[in-house]
Amino acid sequence: MSIKLTILGFNSAIPKKKSAPTAQLLEIANRYFLIDCGEGTQVQLRRAKAKFSKINHIFISHLHGDHVFGLIGLISTLQLLGKETPLKIFGPKGIQDFIMNQLRHTQSNCSFEIDFIELEGKSSVKIFEDEKVEVYTIPLNHRIYTNGYLFKEKPKKRKLNIEAVQQYPEILTCDYDNLKNGRDFVLESGEIIPNEKLTLDPDPSRSYAFCSDTRYKPDIVPIIQGVDLLYHESTFLSDLQDMADYTGHSTAKEAATIAKDANVGRLILGHFSNRYNDLNVMLDEARPIFENTHLPVLFEAIKID
Amino acid sequence: MSIKLTILGFNSAIPKKKSAPTAQLLEIANRYFLIDCGEGTQVQLRRAKAKFSKINHIFISHLHGDHVFGLIGLISTLQLLGKETPLKIFGPKGIQDFIMNQLRHTQSNCSFEIDFIELEGKSSVKIFEDEKVEVYTIPLNHRIYTNGYLFKEKPKKRKLNIEAVQQYPEILTCDYDNLKNGRDFVLESGEIIPNEKLTLDPDPSRSYAFCSDTRYKPDIVPIIQGVDLLYHESTFLSDLQDMADYTGHSTAKEAATIAKDANVGRLILGHFSNRYNDLNVMLDEARPIFENTHLPVLFEAIKID
Repeated sequence: MSIKLTILGFNSAIPKKKSAPTAQLLEIANRYFLIDCGEGTQVQLRRAKAKFSKINHIFISHLHGDHVFGLIGLISTLQLLGKETPLKIFGPKGIQDFIMNQLRHTQSNCSFEIDFIELEGKSSVKIFEDEKVEVYTIPLNHRIYTNGYLFKEKPKKRKLNIEAVQQYPEILTCDYDNLKNGRDFVLESGEIIPNEKLTLDPDPSRSYAFCSDTRYKPDIVPIIQGVDLLYHESTFLSDLQDMADYTGHSTAKEAATIAKDANVGRLILGHFSNRYNDLNVMLDEARPIFENTHLPVLFEAIKID
Repeated sequence: MSIKLTILGFNSAIPKKKSAPTAQLLEIANRYFLIDCGEGTQVQLRRAKAKFSKINHIFISHLHGDHVFGLIGLISTLQLLGKETPLKIFGPKGIQDFIMNQLRHTQSNCSFEIDFIELEGKSSVKIFEDEKVEVYTIPLNHRIYTNGYLFKEKPKKRKLNIEAVQQYPEILTCDYDNLKNGRDFVLESGEIIPNEKLTLDPDPSRSYAFCSDTRYKPDIVPIIQGVDLLYHESTFLSDLQDMADYTGHSTAKEAATIAKDANVGRLILGHFSNRYNDLNVMLDEARPIFENTHLPVLFEAIKID
C-alpha cells in the first residue's frame, strides 16, 4: 500500500462531544506523518490504534487552536512513553516558542530531541526528503500564516520482467538493481539489450495534498496538479461566501473548483462550520463541479494502492 | 442544594480513550467553580451539560499537563462563544505567561478580561471571598509547586421560627432580617425576646477540599478539618510507597489517613496510576482506615445538602 490516510478529526473551531478538531495520520511508504493536532488528538490516535512510537514527523498548518492545541499533550505523552528518537515538527514561525514555553512552565525534561522546522516563506518549498518521500509546503491564505502540505512518493524503481530476464542466462541477480534503475544490459557479445525489454513500468508514485484552512486560492492548483487525493477545507456553503471570505475559509463550491482545476483523483471535504447538521449539503454543492467528492469519516482509512 | 461536585476526569498522566485527566466542576451556593483543566475538559463539560457561560472562576492546582493542558482550549472556546464577563484564573506563578504566550501565538483577541491570580505562598491563604463563599489554598507537596483548594460556604443566616414569631404581633416582616442576623427583639414594653426564642439554627455551611497532586502531607489536616467532602489523590497502593514518595504522590492508605485524621465526612479517591485496572483495590486499602471512602464516577453528581 502506498498511502493510507486516517482522519482523526475534521471539526472547525469548537470541539464537540462526538467529533474532534483537525488531525490526520498519513501513512506513506511506511512512514507515519501526523498532520495538525487539535485538542484531544492523542486520544483519537489511541482510538485509531496508531503506534505512538512511529510518530517522528508532525506537520502543523497554522497556529489556531483547533489545529495545534493537542500538540503539547501529545509531546508530553510521548515523553511519558519513553520516546527516544527525535521528533521533527514542521510549522509556522513561532511554533518552537509556543511549545517550548509550555514545556518550560510544566518543568518537562524531554527524553527526546525536538527539531522545529519553522516556516515563514510565501512560496512552495520542499521541506522534507528521504529515500522514498518528499514533502512540500502549499502556501495558503487564511487569517494567520498557514501552509498546506503536499506529500509525494518519489518515482519508484522499474519492475523486473522476469520472463524476459530469464531468456538471458548472462543476467545475474546482482544485475537486477541496475535494471530496476533503468540501465540497459550489455551482453558479452557486445549486444545491448534495451532496458525496456527487461523491465516493466514502475508502480505509480502516489501523492496527497492537505489544504486547510484557507480562502479560495487558485494559485495552489499548479502545486497540487494531479494528486491522487486532496483534502480541502469547505467550512461554508456558497450562500455564505461573504462569511467565507471574511473568516478566511472556503466554500464547498470553491474546494470542488480547486479539485477540478487541479485534476485530482479524489476530494475529501472537511472543517465544516458547526451550523451544518446534515453534511450532505456539502456534497450537493461540490459534486456537480467535481464528482469524486466525499465527506470525511472518522477513523476510516482511505487507501491508495 | 449547598454543594454539587461533578467529576469530569480523574486520570493520571496519560489520557485514555474512555476517561479523562483531572477536572472537576464544583457548584457551591450557586457559583460555578472549575477545578483543574486537563486536555479535553471542555468536551467533558459539554458531556456534563455544564453551562459554559457560568464559568467565571477556574482554580488550577499545578502546571503539569494532565491538570492544565485543556485550559487554553477552554479559554479559546469561551471566546468563540462570545463570553463577556471577566474570567478569574487562580494558579501557580507562571500560569499567566503560560496562557498569554499561547494566546499571543494564536493571535487571539480575547473578548473578555482574564484576571490571573498567581500563587507562590507556602501557607494556606484566603484567595477568594464573596457574599456566600470563601476559598483557601491548601499548600501541597508534589514535584512542582502545587496547591489544593478549600471551598467553604460562609455561615448562613439563622432561620425564622415562624410559630414563635407569630406570637408577637409587634414583629413585622421588615424585622425578619434582623432576627435572621441573630438580633434579639425589643417589645414596646421594653421586654427583650432573646433571638434563640424566635429563630432556629441555620443550615450548616458546607465545605469541600480538593487535594491533588501531593505526597502524604499531614500538616494539611488542620486546614481541611471537618470538611464535608474531601477529594484526595491516591495514585498508588502502599506496596508502591517508594514510587509514591519518588514521584510525589500518595497511596490509598495515606489518603484515608488524612481523611480520618481530619475527620471529614466523605472521601473520594482519584488520580490513579494506569497500572490499576480494577480500582476496587484502592477501596480495599482505604476503607479499613476510613470507611466512607468512594471511587470517583465520571459525571455523577455528588451532592451535599
